[in-house]
Amino acid sequence: MKIHGKHYRSVWPIGESAFGIIDQSKLPFEFVTLELKSAQDAARVIKVMITRGAPLIGAVAAYGLALAIRHDPSDENLTATHDMLAETRPTAINLRWALNRVCESVRNHPRADRAALAWKEAQAIADEDAAMCEAIGRNGLAIIRDLHRKNGGKVNILTHCNAGWLATVDWGTALAPIYMAHDEGIPLHVWVDETRPRNQGASLTAFELGAHGVNHTIIADNAGGHYMQDGKVDMCIVGTDRVTTNGDVANKIGTYLKALAAKDNNVPFYVALPSSTIDWTLKSGRDIPIEERSSDELLKMTGRTPSGTILTVEIAAPGSPGANPGFDVTPARLITGFITERGTCEATEQGLRSLFPAA
Amino acid sequence: MKIHGKHYRSVWPIGESAFGIIDQSKLPFEFVTLELKSAQDAARVIKVMITRGAPLIGAVAAYGLALAIRHDPSDENLTATHDMLAETRPTAINLRWALNRVCESVRNHPRADRAALAWKEAQAIADEDAAMCEAIGRNGLAIIRDLHRKNGGKVNILTHCNAGWLATVDWGTALAPIYMAHDEGIPLHVWVDETRPRNQGASLTAFELGAHGVNHTIIADNAGGHYMQDGKVDMCIVGTDRVTTNGDVANKIGTYLKALAAKDNNVPFYVALPSSTIDWTLKSGRDIPIEERSSDELLKMTGRTPSGTILTVEIAAPGSPGANPGFDVTPARLITGFITERGTCEATEQGLRSLFPAA
Repeated sequence: MKIHGKHYRSVWPIGESAFGIIDQSKLPFEFVTLELKSAQDAARVIKVMITRGAPLIGAVAAYGLALAIRHDPSDENLTATHDMLAETRPTAINLRWALNRVCESVRNHPRADRAALAWKEAQAIADEDAAMCEAIGRNGLAIIRDLHRKNGGKVNILTHCNAGWLATVDWGTALAPIYMAHDEGIPLHVWVDETRPRNQGASLTAFELGAHGVNHTIIADNAGGHYMQDGKVDMCIVGTDRVTTNGDVANKIGTYLKALAAKDNNVPFYVALPSSTIDWTLKSGRDIPIEERSSDELLKMTGRTPSGTILTVEIAAPGSPGANPGFDVTPARLITGFITERGTCEATEQGLRSLFPAA
Repeated sequence: MKIHGKHYRSVWPIGESAFGIIDQSKLPFEFVTLELKSAQDAARVIKVMITRGAPLIGAVAAYGLALAIRHDPSDENLTATHDMLAETRPTAINLRWALNRVCESVRNHPRADRAALAWKEAQAIADEDAAMCEAIGRNGLAIIRDLHRKNGGKVNILTHCNAGWLATVDWGTALAPIYMAHDEGIPLHVWVDETRPRNQGASLTAFELGAHGVNHTIIADNAGGHYMQDGKVDMCIVGTDRVTTNGDVANKIGTYLKALAAKDNNVPFYVALPSSTIDWTLKSGRDIPIEERSSDELLKMTGRTPSGTILTVEIAAPGSPGANPGFDVTPARLITGFITERGTCEATEQGLRSLFPAA
């Protein structure tokens, strides 16, 4: 995707001893890139969410692990760094999947070869993610085309959190079909859920859509149900951090509430995902660990002052405690379908197995 | 309710030519009271939400209208001021109810008597509101007692927005039963929905509960469904701005989403209201006008800086538009029951008529 006319991915190699990312904590007010030189750097940016989005943190962790292997290619370091990176975010499954891929790529190879192999694997993970998202976009585009054909007018799509190109290596998951539909000339409007407490919708999704010229409106997370009741939402598309075998979906906190409202108003609710997001080891969403994050994310807010500086202000009653679960689980029964790189399917084990029989 | 050891109502007379309110836009960081001397003052504080809460704005508007009558007791001024005040907030019905009461109290009376009659009526509206809320508290207390008896432990209650004493003249609607249960020694914990975009939960409800010593936790509006899935919510209680004859409820935007989640998880969902909130002229919630407020409330946030000053910062992608509906409608089918000053009832016309047959 382009920023100020220049094509960017969300993560890119810098030679073979460093890689670059966009500092997403500075968006939407400043576009700043960072150069990372170690697995520790990678762990830090994932943990504090300078980089975020389930597919993207998989690629960032893979590059981080590859850098650690260059520094010390021993099995001990491989295991220790794998575990250190895997612990940065407990809910996203791609993170573990990507780290395991890098581990597998070097295991049983001479130590002298490992740095190059790991680096190649990290690049492959990033390239494949971009290709998978492009395929997701094409598969989701067919659904938007159908809706447009049926209603003849503008298609109103609601999305929660940021599952755009900033959440992946390129294109995005939930937003990829939207970009393609827009580029094809289908009239579109996107309701962008603010996505408290970290406001990824208002800051990142709105930034992405605005940069690409897609018509959109930021709304409070509270408002989506009202617009669905009012007939102003034709479909919902969200991303996911982990899908279990039965089709349950962990995604950003609040996704469940939108899925309930969609069901109550007969609005189709789609989840877009690369297959690396499927956790075949878990039977249902009840088994997914839900990350509990700092209550500061809720009780304080960072923004731009009238004089242009970025400042964090307290916004809640002083002394009142907060709780901040990062994700919730949307039961498969509320989901119309999955949009994957191999096509669309029902949110059931049968549906998933129809596209991914070998898994 | 007490602030710094002193008993306050949310609105009080100052002689017969002014009245006092709490500047709720300064809470939770500063406790400031204001003296209002005209209907124009009253309209302004209602419109910009320096004073808010459906029952309270009824009382504030009544005092405002009484002051206008003191200034000019003509029928023309009565009608013009009534209309000016009624237009400040379109969704709340008490506002119109209270203004009509003041009008009725002076119509067909000599102009010389009108100022005193109107002032007396405004005071009666305020006193009755406090008494109604106390009765709502007693009736809701019975439900909390039952829950406590059944589960034997702490009762977890979720509330949305602020329907506490700051939203009424005293006690509150949704919070009145909570205060009484707490005072009776029932172990309680309240999940306080932040309530974007104006954050009445995080700023006002948390402030109230904290000042009274009630155990509570602020959560993002997105999080309530997750806690219900997790078995951590025993009941929901909210207030309302207007109830229609069929039992549909207009309340702060986002209420509908919590009611859907409560239904999906078999969590009882109660709406607490004084009967002045019932609009017998409307058959269903589809007929309620929904106020559209400024998108600035969503795209900017006011808080306290590290140096202690209150500042407003931009929090969304610059240039992205926002939409800000103030209320949504929760269908009667999602509501377990109404808690009123006359007792509890089903959320149906039959239920409402059983308590208010003469209406």
